[in-house]
Amino acid sequence: MIDLRTPKGTTDYNPKESFIMTDLLEKTTSIYKKHGAVSIDTPTFELRTILTNKYGDDSKLIFDLADQGGDICSLRYDLTVSFARYIAMNRVLKIKRYQVGKVFRRDQPALTKGKFREFTQCDFDIAGSYLRMTADAEVLKIAQECMQAYELGTFRIKVNHRKMLTAFFQIAEIDKSLHSTICSTVDKIDKMKITEIRKEFKTKGLKDNQIKTIENFIAINGSIEEIIKLKETAVYNCEDGKEAIDDLIILNKFINLFKVSVVYDLSLARGTDYYTGLIFEGVYDNFEVGAVIGGGRYDNLVNDFYVQNGGKEFFVPCVGFSVGVARIFSILKNNSKNLKEAEVQVFVGSSGASLLEERLSLLNEIWGFGFSAETFYAEKMNFMKQASFCKKNQIPVIVILGEEEIKKGIVQILNERNEGEKSLVERKNLYEFLKKIL
Amino acid sequence: MIDLRTPKGTTDYNPKESFIMTDLLEKTTSIYKKHGAVSIDTPTFELRTILTNKYGDDSKLIFDLADQGGDICSLRYDLTVSFARYIAMNRVLKIKRYQVGKVFRRDQPALTKGKFREFTQCDFDIAGSYLRMTADAEVLKIAQECMQAYELGTFRIKVNHRKMLTAFFQIAEIDKSLHSTICSTVDKIDKMKITEIRKEFKTKGLKDNQIKTIENFIAINGSIEEIIKLKETAVYNCEDGKEAIDDLIILNKFINLFKVSVVYDLSLARGTDYYTGLIFEGVYDNFEVGAVIGGGRYDNLVNDFYVQNGGKEFFVPCVGFSVGVARIFSILKNNSKNLKEAEVQVFVGSSGASLLEERLSLLNEIWGFGFSAETFYAEKMNFMKQASFCKKNQIPVIVILGEEEIKKGIVQILNERNEGEKSLVERKNLYEFLKKIL
Repeated sequence: MIDLRTPKGTTDYNPKESFIMTDLLEKTTSIYKKHGAVSIDTPTFELRTILTNKYGDDSKLIFDLADQGGDICSLRYDLTVSFARYIAMNRVLKIKRYQVGKVFRRDQPALTKGKFREFTQCDFDIAGSYLRMTADAEVLKIAQECMQAYELGTFRIKVNHRKMLTAFFQIAEIDKSLHSTICSTVDKIDKMKITEIRKEFKTKGLKDNQIKTIENFIAINGSIEEIIKLKETAVYNCEDGKEAIDDLIILNKFINLFKVSVVYDLSLARGTDYYTGLIFEGVYDNFEVGAVIGGGRYDNLVNDFYVQNGGKEFFVPCVGFSVGVARIFSILKNNSKNLKEAEVQVFVGSSGASLLEERLSLLNEIWGFGFSAETFYAEKMNFMKQASFCKKNQIPVIVILGEEEIKKGIVQILNERNEGEKSLVERKNLYEFLKKIL
Repeated sequence: MIDLRTPKGTTDYNPKESFIMTDLLEKTTSIYKKHGAVSIDTPTFELRTILTNKYGDDSKLIFDLADQGGDICSLRYDLTVSFARYIAMNRVLKIKRYQVGKVFRRDQPALTKGKFREFTQCDFDIAGSYLRMTADAEVLKIAQECMQAYELGTFRIKVNHRKMLTAFFQIAEIDKSLHSTICSTVDKIDKMKITEIRKEFKTKGLKDNQIKTIENFIAINGSIEEIIKLKETAVYNCEDGKEAIDDLIILNKFINLFKVSVVYDLSLARGTDYYTGLIFEGVYDNFEVGAVIGGGRYDNLVNDFYVQNGGKEFFVPCVGFSVGVARIFSILKNNSKNLKEAEVQVFVGSSGASLLEERLSLLNEIWGFGFSAETFYAEKMNFMKQASFCKKNQIPVIVILGEEEIKKGIVQILNERNEGEKSLVERKNLYEFLKKIL
């Protein structure tokens, strides 16, 4: 007895869904290409050590491969870590790349919200040293272009800086060893009740006044003016705070030139450990699927790999983001009706007799022309059945063979694009005729 | 200390390689679409029970996921089994589909031959009941179109029938329980010495005369005449043999109409258990990477799933094939030089001063036009550096800002497509001008 289902948290995409997904990925990658990105591909699983200590509290969600001898591996959790491993391994100094791939997380799935254990990410990243905050600005520009392209109404891009949070933690006198796990808790603020957040802070060892300090800071939310105001506070007196504030002010200048609108939301944390600067998320106002875009700057990840591999130093600063296509898909799916699944241009039919061999020959000729074409692989040809098949599949042209027509070397053509216009066409002119009407 | 490498048998694709791979997949799927195929997608891993008893001796090559609680899963070994599971689960009666996806095999890798533990397959299959051998003929037609499209010289499509082998095994009086494993050995005939094959037959319990009988039959190789001759032999007297011979003779008629050339090679076995009729492989004459296309008919797989799930009966006959893109890629890679990795149309430069903010504004305007564009994210702009960057990256158009030009509201444009022709263009006419020259 076997179960006919996909594993928990995974799903099939039927032809309609697959069509929507393909379209979504093409829209996204065409924006990436407009910004000069190249593409790379990396394996679905990595050596387990590559993934260690990258995802804060969420590391427990990594899917492991069984130990069947040889390398100890895990399924990738995102594309970012593999990208940094690729850069360190190949000593790449500069690259603007995109990558589309499946990633895997043993999380509690919420299928209607597009939250799966296997899902596709579509990433864009800029690696290399550039003028301070310029690459960050382009990354935000691209994120905004993507969110516009999906045409799902108004949205916000929430921006923060990882070092802003570090500064808050420092001011609240939280021990450095706790920063990563406290950050994981801050990351849940959108998803959990404030009482639960406070409980989690306490479980992790924070005192009431520390919690209060954090809560006050992360309540800051608004325009760049809110950030500028912080220059007059204790935040600007600590090194990380100063760097964060200066970064965001410089960034704001560039994104104004790029006509990007953002909201500075200092409660934004992002779950993963590797961010070192800008962090951001994109959220649609009218759909409750959470962030559909998330990213930030990770300047140490490449060097960490390089050093852990025994190298001396190889810093390649990086900034980028992922589009959570599964979440966008879950929105689009409910709004897409009557999609064509396949693009067949010509149906080869017959009037009366089967004419199987003649139909197959003609079909082959039309494939040879480069048009997409089908016939029925059956002996019995019923004209009504042919017509309704073409209608259902939105096939615009029917080429009809008949015994009389074969003798005369002609075919009859019905052109649905022109209200079912009938033409008699000589076989030798068929290509030209089809080219004209298709 | 961590290893900076991909797991054994896996590989990264750098931008050049990724470009070749994307092109290869687009070529292939565009042929599939020409034949009216829709696409589906299925998860990277399946419940382990779905994969059990499908791959003969090769089942040991399946990658298992670790048991971390919940579903017991394995990485998919091919796309065919997932496709059949999809059909049985959704009770699909008819579908012509393609699918592109990574599959996983714990085999001994041979990277230079394009033999990996993780590799992409690009599958086409027709499921449903059609006139005998018509769908099979279209599948062979598409396989031939693919092999032509890759432009790698002459090739052979080798054809056999799984029931032909069953008939041979019956005539050699081999016990039915051994058919699957003997088939796995026959499958290795291309890859191993005949002495080793004989040794393996013996290990599996065959006697000398049985081995001789098999060897005689599988030596048959040639045109349809060789198959017609078999009508006069014992093969045609056993049920499976008669079905195989009749199938191939009918098939031959249809593939003649489709102008497909094949070689009937009765040593062809295919490793997997699920084939029930036509089996075939495509091999290039000039490249020793083995079969680049492989497929066949599997009429029972869907019903097996359905019945094992507790259903009564649900037969959906299927026929299709996989393109082993990694192998084709390994050939193409060595023959592709000077490929562009990205398609940037416009570089925004400056003469003399940095003009960073003006460049970013202009860059943003050009992105808004829909052209792909870049500038240097740097304060210092050196004209020689800009020119050599554009040359290296084959960027055809440079739009140059200067302080004088900004005052006058114009830009200077260098058009490399027209021998570096220089034009002065008003900012308000920029879109029209770029559209004209790009």
